[in-house]
Amino acid sequence: MSANPRIEELLTRFMKRDRIALARLITMVENRADGVGLFMERIYPMAGNARVIGITGAPGAGKSTLVNRLIAHLRRRGQRVAVLAIDPSSPFSGGAVLGDRVRMTDHYRDDAVYIRSISSRGSHGGLSRAAREIVHILDAFGHDTVIIETVGVGQTELGVMDLAGTTVVVTVPEGGDGVQAMKAGLNEIADVFVVNKADRAGADRIKAELELEVHLRSSAGWHPPVIMTEATADRGVDSLLETIDRHSEYIAQSRDSTHNAERRVHEFVDIVTAEIERRATRALGDGAAPDLIDRIRTGELNPYRAARELMEHPGKLANVLADEADKPSIDDRRPGRS
Amino acid sequence: MSANPRIEELLTRFMKRDRIALARLITMVENRADGVGLFMERIYPMAGNARVIGITGAPGAGKSTLVNRLIAHLRRRGQRVAVLAIDPSSPFSGGAVLGDRVRMTDHYRDDAVYIRSISSRGSHGGLSRAAREIVHILDAFGHDTVIIETVGVGQTELGVMDLAGTTVVVTVPEGGDGVQAMKAGLNEIADVFVVNKADRAGADRIKAELELEVHLRSSAGWHPPVIMTEATADRGVDSLLETIDRHSEYIAQSRDSTHNAERRVHEFVDIVTAEIERRATRALGDGAAPDLIDRIRTGELNPYRAARELMEHPGKLANVLADEADKPSIDDRRPGRS
Repeated sequence: MSANPRIEELLTRFMKRDRIALARLITMVENRADGVGLFMERIYPMAGNARVIGITGAPGAGKSTLVNRLIAHLRRRGQRVAVLAIDPSSPFSGGAVLGDRVRMTDHYRDDAVYIRSISSRGSHGGLSRAAREIVHILDAFGHDTVIIETVGVGQTELGVMDLAGTTVVVTVPEGGDGVQAMKAGLNEIADVFVVNKADRAGADRIKAELELEVHLRSSAGWHPPVIMTEATADRGVDSLLETIDRHSEYIAQSRDSTHNAERRVHEFVDIVTAEIERRATRALGDGAAPDLIDRIRTGELNPYRAARELMEHPGKLANVLADEADKPSIDDRRPGRS
Repeated sequence: MSANPRIEELLTRFMKRDRIALARLITMVENRADGVGLFMERIYPMAGNARVIGITGAPGAGKSTLVNRLIAHLRRRGQRVAVLAIDPSSPFSGGAVLGDRVRMTDHYRDDAVYIRSISSRGSHGGLSRAAREIVHILDAFGHDTVIIETVGVGQTELGVMDLAGTTVVVTVPEGGDGVQAMKAGLNEIADVFVVNKADRAGADRIKAELELEVHLRSSAGWHPPVIMTEATADRGVDSLLETIDRHSEYIAQSRDSTHNAERRVHEFVDIVTAEIERRATRALGDGAAPDLIDRIRTGELNPYRAARELMEHPGKLANVLADEADKPSIDDRRPGRS
């Protein structure tokens, strides 16, 4: 894989903080375009400076308004801020567009604020990978803070919160059953709880419930505080930001030097498996292993047996996994070329 | 990979419809245990007879009650019925247990009804794969109908609905914003809409809204009907089941002979990529490619560059992916053994 002129040009523009290049790169990541790996390899050394904050909670909890307020507070500190919103709605419906409009109102003329929605259903099944790469890109672009916003549902959507140094779980007083459901999934990932719309009835009760919950499972280390906010009135947002600051300091002190090393190894494994999956899917779709595919199609071979046959022949497997770009047709290959 | 005595014993018991063996197999699938692929390969020819119905909708829509009623109706037809409930709650909280208790009440003494919950967060990141394998297992065990129940949220959770021949989306009159959010994601996968709790105010309005929605995007083919039910009173459930029957007939007639062939190929690709991922994760965790891993750990090599180095050497890659069980230490291997 040699230098790719298109990637080099994008990279040059990216280094100059060209927002159109940034937007195009994120789209490439979403589409799993060729060249993304190479691009990520080049910008990786530039990433690692941004603080990543995750904001999650049920629809209607006021996350977007809260994020808008956090942006304003961070801008007052002179920070460059990016938001990656994971939108649960489909690419065919209007949800994402509306969400963007609300979020953009306050900051759309501010060059130091970049806001992007991606659909949780539009990332070719690779939401975790796409989100990780986009966070690196936003970080490398020079943002001081990257905020990831998700609706707190679903295996993949919750997995995205692993990218955040600090995860904020937003609840509202009138949650009722919803709060129960949410608590079930979200308690374990929360570093900070927010009770938003804290002027409404029941805010004190839910604060007490969450504090009890934290107390019951508390051990040594960080105990997630419960912060009351009224995002629409900008109340409690300063206190939330201070709490996030405290948590950032806590993790900086409590994580030993091996933490980053292990994170990089973990990321390597993720990148390799995603790339293998991409190649295998494409190669098999393009007609690699035609003998197997034909026999599966006719029903002569069941898919599990075919998979075993492929996995037991490293040469065959290597064929499937070799880069499409520089791969001769499958019949010309010798099994086990190294 | 030769015959595995433990798998053979489980298989013998499975053929005798031993429910303990069934439960153990499903747990093995959830844990991604060794031998599952071999087991799946053996039972695959026995599957393919069950009708698979997906039921999805927001928490509180009454899905479990509806499923309970559907079971009763299908039992009156003399069918064996299995339910796979994808539970969004974590393995550490009580949600799944409570859900099971509610569901089990009516049918727990009935040997022709098998109900199983799995946590959407407990499947080692492979919910789609686990659900597909469990559906095959429940099918091969001799169930005539397999019902998959999910909370309609999240990329992975929605993906599970691809396994269903007929997908039923359950709504309730008081949905409000929730319905909007749900419509955004669920409209495109619905074969049948249900307005449950249809005795409540607003039922006619939401029925009209859904019918308009269906009309607006209608083209040739199946137009998702909107069925009113009161599951707690067993009202409308017969009509729902008739509609599901009609949809089953529709897909049986409209899908040509290549449909199943393509489904098998698609499944093969899924199985291969999942197995590759499993092996790569395990092998790299176990210390394969130690040269790369060490350099990633020290920060000398960034993860993207390391991934490229590995991917550019098919022999190295094949080594990493060779079956762990019969693999000598990595240094003893010749690249490209076939």
